[in-house]
Amino acid sequence: LIVLAHPESSSYNAHLATLAQQTLLATGSRVEMSDLYAMGFDPAEDARHFSVRADPRRFDAQLEQRFSYDREELPEAVQGEVDKILRADLVLLHFPLWWFGMPAILKGWMDRVFVYGGMYSGSRRHERGVCRGKRALFCVTTGSSEAACSPTGKEGDTRLVLWPALYSMRYLGFTVLQPFLVHGVRGGLTGPAADAANARLHAIEQRFATVLRQLDDAPVMPFNADTDFDENGQLKPDAPVYSPFIRHQE
Amino acid sequence: LIVLAHPESSSYNAHLATLAQQTLLATGSRVEMSDLYAMGFDPAEDARHFSVRADPRRFDAQLEQRFSYDREELPEAVQGEVDKILRADLVLLHFPLWWFGMPAILKGWMDRVFVYGGMYSGSRRHERGVCRGKRALFCVTTGSSEAACSPTGKEGDTRLVLWPALYSMRYLGFTVLQPFLVHGVRGGLTGPAADAANARLHAIEQRFATVLRQLDDAPVMPFNADTDFDENGQLKPDAPVYSPFIRHQE
Repeated sequence: LIVLAHPESSSYNAHLATLAQQTLLATGSRVEMSDLYAMGFDPAEDARHFSVRADPRRFDAQLEQRFSYDREELPEAVQGEVDKILRADLVLLHFPLWWFGMPAILKGWMDRVFVYGGMYSGSRRHERGVCRGKRALFCVTTGSSEAACSPTGKEGDTRLVLWPALYSMRYLGFTVLQPFLVHGVRGGLTGPAADAANARLHAIEQRFATVLRQLDDAPVMPFNADTDFDENGQLKPDAPVYSPFIRHQE
Repeated sequence: LIVLAHPESSSYNAHLATLAQQTLLATGSRVEMSDLYAMGFDPAEDARHFSVRADPRRFDAQLEQRFSYDREELPEAVQGEVDKILRADLVLLHFPLWWFGMPAILKGWMDRVFVYGGMYSGSRRHERGVCRGKRALFCVTTGSSEAACSPTGKEGDTRLVLWPALYSMRYLGFTVLQPFLVHGVRGGLTGPAADAANARLHAIEQRFATVLRQLDDAPVMPFNADTDFDENGQLKPDAPVYSPFIRHQE
């Protein structure tokens, strides 16, 4: 499943999604595409999406998600995406980095499609998650340079900036691959600058296609196992630390 | 300016927004409210919002934002929010934490309203930003407990999870206050459990009102100054480190 969250179909980001589609088809895989802008996906989780309600007076998103899931009455757009995820072995998320995160249309895809009671619950998450055995890979473009997006850069370390979104995939049980980042993607170049940029992007495309053809070799992001936490959800003293987001007390 | 991003008007999150409004009115301030769900704010930045176009064939969000801003032809919903921000001394963002981030409707408010060429540019950001001298404060509710949202907790350190959104405010030049976090907000309690929860929430409300009445005393988040970076956007060797997102090379 390829989820694309870019408003311009001729963007480099969308181009990489098409490349992914062609590369995976060439390996004999079936490929489904969710082009969120083309679908007109509504990103705002809201009462108006729910035709049946557990509590018609007060809208609680988790309560209503579970209620609709249990009754097989999920909103049509949501059910379609749930089905695609459940059919997939690999979920690719293609998006440009906007304001240090996903475009709203993709954040809303998570808000609505990662259905409480269906795609996760207190007892079905992380290594016991519904999506265990499936892989997730982010393909992210930034306008800023690789240097500016590095740990020492002014735009902040993109790999850390993406951690909350990557952890959301892990929450559902996905094996999360290290994100594929393409920095310095800018339109409007002409002449020798455009030629140099195109040569660089061509090399990136080769590298991306290789990742997709050799997914077993792709580096996996480490996360704590559920067993690394005590009954209060606290990291056990001997548990490993994989990111600053979940760490031992100084 | 109070920006509220919760789909349920009787939620505790919305209640805190109303409390903020009343508290600030009582100090003699004027208060504007952007209830994004009530406004039907469209979070997806997209070509269809722009009536004039710099490039009608290919949609580049930054290019079109700057073009529309320069011609004073911003989309009406965006212009309204820009005007509110420019009038405000304090911008409060009220939202529940969904999938380790802002609800899509609020992320889209940033994607669309933080207009390139108007609200920021390469030369007008951080301490030279358009919003310098204004304060920003996030009021964030989570269903998970304070322990689970702490640095040692399974949900990840909420203060780090919020950093990309807080840095977005800093990018525009805001003085960013430490976020006001309310954990363990859950509906559906009855009997003594509900009484205990209500007593706890009442104490939180008192604390929040005090913060709003004494903003000069509220702790400010530190960020690097533009002068902490060299001409390539790299942190200078002697510059201070305020978060793992921007740090020295190990």
